[in-house]
Amino acid sequence: MGLWYTEKHRLGFGITYKIKRTLADEQTEFQKLELVDTEAFGRMLLLDGLVMTTVFDEFIYHEMITHPPLCTHPNPRRVLVIGGGDGGTVREVLRHPSVESVELCEIDRRVVEVCREYLPETSCGLSDPRVSIVYADGIEYVKNAEAKYDCIIVDSTDPIGPAVGLFSLDFYKSIYRALTDDGVFSAQTESPLAEPDFVRKVTHEIGSVFPVCGLYTAAIQTYPGALWSFTIGSKRCHPVNDAREVPELKGCRHYHYGLHRAMFDAVPKFARELLPDSFV
Amino acid sequence: MGLWYTEKHRLGFGITYKIKRTLADEQTEFQKLELVDTEAFGRMLLLDGLVMTTVFDEFIYHEMITHPPLCTHPNPRRVLVIGGGDGGTVREVLRHPSVESVELCEIDRRVVEVCREYLPETSCGLSDPRVSIVYADGIEYVKNAEAKYDCIIVDSTDPIGPAVGLFSLDFYKSIYRALTDDGVFSAQTESPLAEPDFVRKVTHEIGSVFPVCGLYTAAIQTYPGALWSFTIGSKRCHPVNDAREVPELKGCRHYHYGLHRAMFDAVPKFARELLPDSFV
Repeated sequence: MGLWYTEKHRLGFGITYKIKRTLADEQTEFQKLELVDTEAFGRMLLLDGLVMTTVFDEFIYHEMITHPPLCTHPNPRRVLVIGGGDGGTVREVLRHPSVESVELCEIDRRVVEVCREYLPETSCGLSDPRVSIVYADGIEYVKNAEAKYDCIIVDSTDPIGPAVGLFSLDFYKSIYRALTDDGVFSAQTESPLAEPDFVRKVTHEIGSVFPVCGLYTAAIQTYPGALWSFTIGSKRCHPVNDAREVPELKGCRHYHYGLHRAMFDAVPKFARELLPDSFV
Repeated sequence: MGLWYTEKHRLGFGITYKIKRTLADEQTEFQKLELVDTEAFGRMLLLDGLVMTTVFDEFIYHEMITHPPLCTHPNPRRVLVIGGGDGGTVREVLRHPSVESVELCEIDRRVVEVCREYLPETSCGLSDPRVSIVYADGIEYVKNAEAKYDCIIVDSTDPIGPAVGLFSLDFYKSIYRALTDDGVFSAQTESPLAEPDFVRKVTHEIGSVFPVCGLYTAAIQTYPGALWSFTIGSKRCHPVNDAREVPELKGCRHYHYGLHRAMFDAVPKFARELLPDSFV
């Protein structure tokens, strides 16, 4: 039979994976970190028992959190990624030829180190000369920045423990201040099917800070609810009308320009109904 | 701990459900049929051990297989549903005021009987006077019909055992002949993420029979791959340009007119690349 790992969610539902081998298993300063090799999805990173990323399907999440904000901004040069220690989001940011610098602000140095060792396909971009890594609390780091970044991407874990503050009104206000005048931010904002009340709360908070906002979704089978959401907050640029087609994104496997233009309209009704009326 | 049911897929992946109670468990003439009450998704129908439908999220599948073809046809009056013994698709068909008759062709009488007893929210439409139920093999039933239906919906199980023939070129040719001149058909066509080769094969077969075709997706967490696909084949009407906004669909929870117009463009790149170039 072999070893199976089951991520159980509240209410009697879980996703179970056959494990070929455990490659890392440690308690870091911040969380329980495991890196396992699974039969179905290849190598997989777990933090506090929750699946963060798998080699098989990480492209869906990383392309979808990155390209919508960067294609909405007219010329993104300076980008900040908060969280995202596996490096997948940084890898996607680097596809954009306009980008001159990417800062990765990750609280847990061990996440970066373990992903560098065991997830080379995901973490490869971290060695790029345009990238600098800061090991710090994203909340404090953003608070001390002003009009500095063209795009900020909040690639956080679920809103439990240390990540709670990454889904707060004060944090969104700090992000607003840390962005330049054309600034665009995106964040993963959980599942509208599994966590509708949370999605309602978070989108209303983002909508109270940013004048132009939108929510879009992607299907990710390793996340509870499967229908996963991302929210864009923009100071000025419109995420559909101002969207640019970036030729360098031809190598993407999920994102494409037609999808970008359609994805806000393609949100299911039960998810749209959670959003402020002002969302695109 | 209680009892958990795990639907395991090939390659070491499964979805597991806490079971409160088993309501039906029998071997019918055609398949193993179980109806259980789950903690996370309410009542759930399983056929041959595979999750078919749950009270919690059946609206996603049933709205998405039904409304795109019926809103593409200018005036659907006669509709045939093949499979779909739980009645959810019939319930959605009946939202369309133009519909005068719905035939449900289900091979297994016990599926209808058990769903009528235990899934009243899903099966409610089966008692409508416009509905007639035929217990027959859908392949044979369609073969004997000619220019009879405005829409045909193939709401089948996975392409294993008795359902294999519902994913064949001959069957699509029979459907074409059974449709009127403006006829539109839809089918569930599995997951482009979990079964890319299958999706490629089936869409090319449908594309070789119908002049106007398109594929669209929905996230369904209880199906392997989570990104689920549906394919439309149409004799004449264009599924985007000819799409009608039907006011009676305001009560839907997933489908809406904006989604219909956007959903073909919102298909992820890895799924689009499986399709014939002729697809919309």
